[in-house]
Amino acid sequence: MAEQVRAIRTRKTILSAAARIFEENGYQAATISQILREAGVTKGALYFHFQSKEELAQGVLAGQDQQLVVPERASKVQQTVDVVMLHAYRLQTDSMVRAGVRLSMDQLAQGLDRSGPFMRWSEVGCALFQEAQRQGELLPHVVPVETADVLVGSFAGIQSMSQAICDYQDLVTRVSALMRHLLPSVVMPAVLASLDLSESRGAAVYAEALKAAQELEVSAAIA
Amino acid sequence: MAEQVRAIRTRKTILSAAARIFEENGYQAATISQILREAGVTKGALYFHFQSKEELAQGVLAGQDQQLVVPERASKVQQTVDVVMLHAYRLQTDSMVRAGVRLSMDQLAQGLDRSGPFMRWSEVGCALFQEAQRQGELLPHVVPVETADVLVGSFAGIQSMSQAICDYQDLVTRVSALMRHLLPSVVMPAVLASLDLSESRGAAVYAEALKAAQELEVSAAIA
Repeated sequence: MAEQVRAIRTRKTILSAAARIFEENGYQAATISQILREAGVTKGALYFHFQSKEELAQGVLAGQDQQLVVPERASKVQQTVDVVMLHAYRLQTDSMVRAGVRLSMDQLAQGLDRSGPFMRWSEVGCALFQEAQRQGELLPHVVPVETADVLVGSFAGIQSMSQAICDYQDLVTRVSALMRHLLPSVVMPAVLASLDLSESRGAAVYAEALKAAQELEVSAAIA
Repeated sequence: MAEQVRAIRTRKTILSAAARIFEENGYQAATISQILREAGVTKGALYFHFQSKEELAQGVLAGQDQQLVVPERASKVQQTVDVVMLHAYRLQTDSMVRAGVRLSMDQLAQGLDRSGPFMRWSEVGCALFQEAQRQGELLPHVVPVETADVLVGSFAGIQSMSQAICDYQDLVTRVSALMRHLLPSVVMPAVLASLDLSESRGAAVYAEALKAAQELEVSAAIA
């Protein structure tokens, strides 16, 4: 058990180091020796966890995947909004999430398949919109997969613009504006009126999800 | 006059070389000596036009600015759509436009101010939406600068997603979907019904703009 804990910790150390090196030098120019030096682990330890630079990058890319779960909402549109707002909030506050997103936006990274995060986020969005559709929350013409793709692509650009202009300071404002622009063409008016699209939503959902995750850990420890 | 033509040609050669080198290595790792070699010009010629790597990058970034003008439309919303669709089409077909966009999306380019293209596109969009507003084409709640920012940010991400997933093959489809999702929350229903948001719009506008530019050149030569 202690060994397993140590292995998980080493893996985390390596990924954090890789995230910093990719962020500093770009995927193309980064080298495994730089990551080794930054992480302060042995070559053997690194290769035990990751076989190549691409595997390291895939590990960082996966860092933006959700570990925090948004609580179930009666409205699946609100749940979608909450997933997006939580991601925006974490992008402002969590360096690992930021590193993953930057790497997936690195159009210069040759030989690195960056489609993964786009696809995974699209699947999350598509599943939620399909549920919303079953519940009658969406306008009749909506195609869930298309709307999910538009949302994921738009979010990616909005965050990139916010980063370029002011290093994410206005990110939640911009994401809230995106939601107000996209949802009226997707959602039934009565549902639209009930949504919370405010800028503070992300922080509130984060606090809620964190509390739920901690309670889960406590009950797992007791069991 | 011949000297001026030569200078313009040299400047173009250097920028094309810089675009290729930035695309291959990323801004961070690219060097002026690589660009010199790629362009096949003297050091003196390069420094006559560009003082630094950042100036070279700014030149490439400016390559995505419009040289082709979308003809005036009675509907300023249609004109906005045409500007976006033309840009999508050029992104698929013009390597210099592509290089500029990639560089402005290079979140790893430290010390390079990438906010320029975002701001310039926002200004173009904002001016068009303001005109549309004066003509009564927009819904009463719309704030032109906010809508322009959402459009520019969303477009940036949609193109990045299309590039990551299929190297721009589905770009015009995705941009058309973006327009169908954004405009209903912005535009009066009667205007909405009159818009051409089809995937082939970009190619048609390109042909039209190119013809107009050529006629202008001919009439300038006669005068």
